Amino acid sequence: MEFQELLKNRRSIRDFQEKEIPLDTVTDIIRESCLAPSSGNGQPWQFVVINRKETMKRLSDESKKNLLSDIAQNPDSPAKKYEDILRNEEFNVFYNAPCLVYVIGPQDHRLLDVDCSLFACYFMLAAAARGLGTCWIGLGTNVRNQELMREIGIPEDCRIVAPIIIGYPTSIPEPSERNKPRILKVVS
Amino acid sequence: MEFQELLKNRRSIRDFQEKEIPLDTVTDIIRESCLAPSSGNGQPWQFVVINRKETMKRLSDESKKNLLSDIAQNPDSPAKKYEDILRNEEFNVFYNAPCLVYVIGPQDHRLLDVDCSLFACYFMLAAAARGLGTCWIGLGTNVRNQELMREIGIPEDCRIVAPIIIGYPTSIPEPSERNKPRILKVVS
Repeated sequence: MEFQELLKNRRSIRDFQEKEIPLDTVTDIIRESCLAPSSGNGQPWQFVVINRKETMKRLSDESKKNLLSDIAQNPDSPAKKYEDILRNEEFNVFYNAPCLVYVIGPQDHRLLDVDCSLFACYFMLAAAARGLGTCWIGLGTNVRNQELMREIGIPEDCRIVAPIIIGYPTSIPEPSERNKPRILKVVS
Repeated sequence: MEFQELLKNRRSIRDFQEKEIPLDTVTDIIRESCLAPSSGNGQPWQFVVINRKETMKRLSDESKKNLLSDIAQNPDSPAKKYEDILRNEEFNVFYNAPCLVYVIGPQDHRLLDVDCSLFACYFMLAAAARGLGTCWIGLGTNVRNQELMREIGIPEDCRIVAPIIIGYPTSIPEPSERNKPRILKVVS
């Protein structure tokens, strides 16, 4: 697939076919995405792969509970705009995808967000190049139960940066609207 | 170019041909890279393009001065490992590239680092797809002189996330070593 075509095919996908994704495919995509650049080539990224729906449901419930508690304590919480959907018991933050990859790394790493975002970008494109769909689920970072974190293998000194769902898309929608680029100044 | 090939060709480039890069090419790459995903499709990215070498030299000098001041005040500064090269008057943090793009955005945006990193990733790949070389220059974020910031068009409420140099590479080195992916656990 040509790169320009790939950029248009990489869409945030929230509707998946009822089809498992082979673990080998996920690990291939992870391996390929490790070619992403990182600050000082530090490669701080680590991964947890979850392809058990029951566990994903529990992680979704944990995230929803914590976000609703944030909203109750702070009406200005950025999660406020999701309140209605978070109260919907049917709603799964991971959209019933067949697989979830947590991109995590050391909490004390100064550029963890940057490095893991670069990895995540490669991951989403490498998946699209194979006809797979992904979506970065920001709501899915809100896992705070230490026992659950231990159970899924996230060390205490690590932080979740990017929860990415992956699976076979039911369809690939057209690219959504983008703003005109805001080039504030050209100094030439 | 096939995507897998592109991933191998996207290398951090610090040696450039003495050849200007047309402004239209840079703006095309910026426009294409706006297809990057962002939190809630918020697209908080904004840009300043600098292709005047004299201005880039001043920005390099300003960054070096501030980093050396950080090191003097705090020997544990992350810049400490660059101290020798920062003291070298010949060293330009932008490696004498023909062009520099600052990816910036509102300081108060909660996910600015993530969103601008996703943009930067698209930008570096879209450049590589055109045979161009880029490098994210972390040292180049350290511009603090308000007058200089105004002169290059960065608003006071904005923050530099990604300074990216771009130009025609003298060569494309082989991919550097990557660690084996650290998949901590598979929950299946």
